[in-house]
Amino acid sequence: MLGLMQDWPLLLHRIIDHAAIYHGTRPVITRSVEGPIVETNYAEIRARALKVAQRLERDGVKLGDRVATLAWNTWRHLECWYGILGTGAVYHTVNPRLFPDQIVWIINHAEDKVMMLDLTFVPLMEKLADKLPTIERYIILTDAAHMPQTTLKNAVAYEDWIAEADGDFAWKQFDENTAAGMCYTSGTTGDPKGVLYSHRSNTLHAFMAALPDSKNLSATDVCLPVVPFFHANGWSLAFSTPMVGASLVLPGAKMDGASIYELLDTYKVSFTAAVPTVWLMLLQDLEKTGAKLPHLKRVVIGGSACPRAMAKTFEEKYDVEVVHAWGMTEMSPLGSLCTMKPEYAALTGDARLDIQQKQGHPPFGVEMKITDDEGKRLAWDGKVFGRLKVRGPAVAKAYFKNKDNILDAEGFFDTGDVATIDQYGYMQVTDRAKDVIKSGGEWISSIDLENLAVGHPKVAEAAVIGIAHPKWDERPLLVIVLKKGETATKDDILGFMQGKVAKWWLPDDVAFVEDIPHTATGKIQKTTLRKQFRDYRLPTVEAAE
Amino acid sequence: MLGLMQDWPLLLHRIIDHAAIYHGTRPVITRSVEGPIVETNYAEIRARALKVAQRLERDGVKLGDRVATLAWNTWRHLECWYGILGTGAVYHTVNPRLFPDQIVWIINHAEDKVMMLDLTFVPLMEKLADKLPTIERYIILTDAAHMPQTTLKNAVAYEDWIAEADGDFAWKQFDENTAAGMCYTSGTTGDPKGVLYSHRSNTLHAFMAALPDSKNLSATDVCLPVVPFFHANGWSLAFSTPMVGASLVLPGAKMDGASIYELLDTYKVSFTAAVPTVWLMLLQDLEKTGAKLPHLKRVVIGGSACPRAMAKTFEEKYDVEVVHAWGMTEMSPLGSLCTMKPEYAALTGDARLDIQQKQGHPPFGVEMKITDDEGKRLAWDGKVFGRLKVRGPAVAKAYFKNKDNILDAEGFFDTGDVATIDQYGYMQVTDRAKDVIKSGGEWISSIDLENLAVGHPKVAEAAVIGIAHPKWDERPLLVIVLKKGETATKDDILGFMQGKVAKWWLPDDVAFVEDIPHTATGKIQKTTLRKQFRDYRLPTVEAAE
Repeated sequence: MLGLMQDWPLLLHRIIDHAAIYHGTRPVITRSVEGPIVETNYAEIRARALKVAQRLERDGVKLGDRVATLAWNTWRHLECWYGILGTGAVYHTVNPRLFPDQIVWIINHAEDKVMMLDLTFVPLMEKLADKLPTIERYIILTDAAHMPQTTLKNAVAYEDWIAEADGDFAWKQFDENTAAGMCYTSGTTGDPKGVLYSHRSNTLHAFMAALPDSKNLSATDVCLPVVPFFHANGWSLAFSTPMVGASLVLPGAKMDGASIYELLDTYKVSFTAAVPTVWLMLLQDLEKTGAKLPHLKRVVIGGSACPRAMAKTFEEKYDVEVVHAWGMTEMSPLGSLCTMKPEYAALTGDARLDIQQKQGHPPFGVEMKITDDEGKRLAWDGKVFGRLKVRGPAVAKAYFKNKDNILDAEGFFDTGDVATIDQYGYMQVTDRAKDVIKSGGEWISSIDLENLAVGHPKVAEAAVIGIAHPKWDERPLLVIVLKKGETATKDDILGFMQGKVAKWWLPDDVAFVEDIPHTATGKIQKTTLRKQFRDYRLPTVEAAE
Repeated sequence: MLGLMQDWPLLLHRIIDHAAIYHGTRPVITRSVEGPIVETNYAEIRARALKVAQRLERDGVKLGDRVATLAWNTWRHLECWYGILGTGAVYHTVNPRLFPDQIVWIINHAEDKVMMLDLTFVPLMEKLADKLPTIERYIILTDAAHMPQTTLKNAVAYEDWIAEADGDFAWKQFDENTAAGMCYTSGTTGDPKGVLYSHRSNTLHAFMAALPDSKNLSATDVCLPVVPFFHANGWSLAFSTPMVGASLVLPGAKMDGASIYELLDTYKVSFTAAVPTVWLMLLQDLEKTGAKLPHLKRVVIGGSACPRAMAKTFEEKYDVEVVHAWGMTEMSPLGSLCTMKPEYAALTGDARLDIQQKQGHPPFGVEMKITDDEGKRLAWDGKVFGRLKVRGPAVAKAYFKNKDNILDAEGFFDTGDVATIDQYGYMQVTDRAKDVIKSGGEWISSIDLENLAVGHPKVAEAAVIGIAHPKWDERPLLVIVLKKGETATKDDILGFMQGKVAKWWLPDDVAFVEDIPHTATGKIQKTTLRKQFRDYRLPTVEAAE
């Protein structure tokens, strides 16, 4: 027997409808790519998104077609998303930080039909356009006055293009499981993989993201998403913010400390979110200028682990609540947030920072488990670590045009992270699964050893990889870059580490190198490092033989 | 093209799973019907709900079967809901405040198979049981020690009954649109009508209800639902509270001021919700004792309009934020909450109270419109009032075993309320549609006139009904009960009202009566009043003839 409630599919354009009706005059402020600050509101954004939808339809874009966006966070980008969504097409956010070859690969794999791009990226796309046969038209997100001369196919200035529409358009209606958005993940190996969000998954995710113990978003908030919309579905901010009617401040192309500070201060931003690198730049700028953050209440820090010192500075020096978060493109992307449950709410100082080093607990709608390599569930004691697997309505079940089964027998997706979960359900990432060192059936966290090693005053950077071992399977090798002009020995380093980790975790050897390879996004490229040390033999191997 | 996200149906038992896993030790405290305070937690509630499900299945309860509950808010009632839900059966909350004939009617109409009832209601059900052929078993929500002698069919003490199960049960899995709960509305005319919630509608509604600008529920809250679970789906508190892991304090059968105060104070309740009558009792008790409410942060007041003086006292004397709310059984039930958007957030004193007299704005997932009798949309200016109609995933599309179409051409449900909506989307109920007086094509609010009349120092109660008029269609008649020992004339009363409403709103006559008829729940019974004045002729009619 079915319930007798209304059929009201969870369609994302209903979010901008709600924002326009109930929060129509709420400011949406952008530092435009052209330079000046531009102020609009949700009612105008909806009105222009309707024009985008109407124009896309006239250009032949249909249900299920992919429309690429290569753009910073601006009001125009937001209009494009909702216009695309309202036709039943799929926004495909292209990350401009990818290598050009990867950009070509993903656009061709997605078969994008139209691309909407910022002025910033016109030169890049002119170089790549010949390799992109599916794109029929390039819409430059600017007006006639700023429109460049360009060889891009059927290029048109966005403002001219939407001016051809009168906005008399009704959003398309369709099944809530219809594809809505697409974002590719680029691992360190293999081709990028396309995650395909649905209207349903993004809507449910926006609810989860806005809850008090998640991002806690209200109509009275002024929200600055520094995290770009092209980074992991923009952390849901293009949906959860208009869903609650919070004001938006969008940074455009400028994410340096001074530019972000100016927005935070001028527009009395109460909520912001970005990766640690951005906050490092902001904190350095504040340090230099002596400025404070009197309006900012909460900062969400994710994408990579939030350094303890960063959390401490935000909370103790600037009185800004830090919400450490974790997620991934495959999770829409939020998986967990480190907001305080009653068990931890009264903690202060170091005890609070200890908890804030964890990535936190999931909202309703995300299930987690940690398992060993055989899939057996492990204890939630905050110590045992295992493969972190997740399940929920906003978690991927497959990649685009890819037949691989990515779920286990219980329907969980393996995140590739290794984590502990404590008795209150707080998860902490301890490593990537492929980087963990498997020694005698037990796991050693490469990240823990690296964090420890960089604490040595002479060490600039450290990486730990597993080296084959006949008795133990793998044993850790510590690779070190010393600070300029410093010298140190293996015994110096290991002596420093001794007593700070279990004895059997101590690396079997230390290799001193000039530099450690990095990915385009600044992460240590362990695959390359492993190749470099392919023929390396540990001294303990020789001893064992 | 569909998205590639996981199939994870929105099933309500997932909420108690989440609560048990992530908030397992969070206290759930009840003033038991037997008397003592009982403390349990979400992990135990889930464990016992599994036993309920297992036992129900053994008793032959299947997917879609209705299980009646006639019970106060207790931990056992909560376990029953989740146990019922986890078998795919439907909880049917029976309101003990209905007339016995109505209780018989709805149980037979619902064809309830099992009834779970509190000790309080055993005598009542013994009287009615002969007329209830579908109920196969009565489960008394108590233990062996408190089990009464009873003639109820197959009666068993709840604790004995679940003790026969080991809890080794897996929740059933099914479509999220499966019926989950049932609640009958009893209007002043006609048979009660059954609203049939689904797992999906209740889950989405719980998200909507928990948002910062709705009830703002967090794991750090201690939540006291005084509103009974049998009243309009318990205002979603049985779902939205465990969804976020807030602690629960349940009042059992005692809702007098002193009992509620004791719970608020002892357990440091931060959030509570009930109808104005309950708060009147509490405020009177506080007045008497001089006690304060240092822990309470927010009180949701709904069910009927929150008196201005009540809002003022809570906010100004006790420093408790008042959230005026509106909804109805057909809406799961929350429709709108009067939380402050930036446009109103800075208001204080009378200006703030003015806004708080409104029922507020809806969360994402509730659409509203006001229309005239022909269905034409009316302006949102805070002045024009029209029929209030709503649409959304948690709004009814039909009643149980009833073929009537209750939606308009756009899919909106007519609430039966008449309301204004202001420019910021704040709705204010001005009357019930059937009570509004239609005079010369314009509407006059009976409630506005009543509120004005009771402001006269000699008036104890006032009711306004429309009386047929040859020229104007209807004109208002003001029916007055004077305070004991007082005397007044028509001119006294109308003179007092003059200048405070539009001239053409002034009643054509005043009738003085000994008392005004009321419904079982204390509302003015205007149908009866209209019958009493069926043959009454207004003086202005005679003048017009």
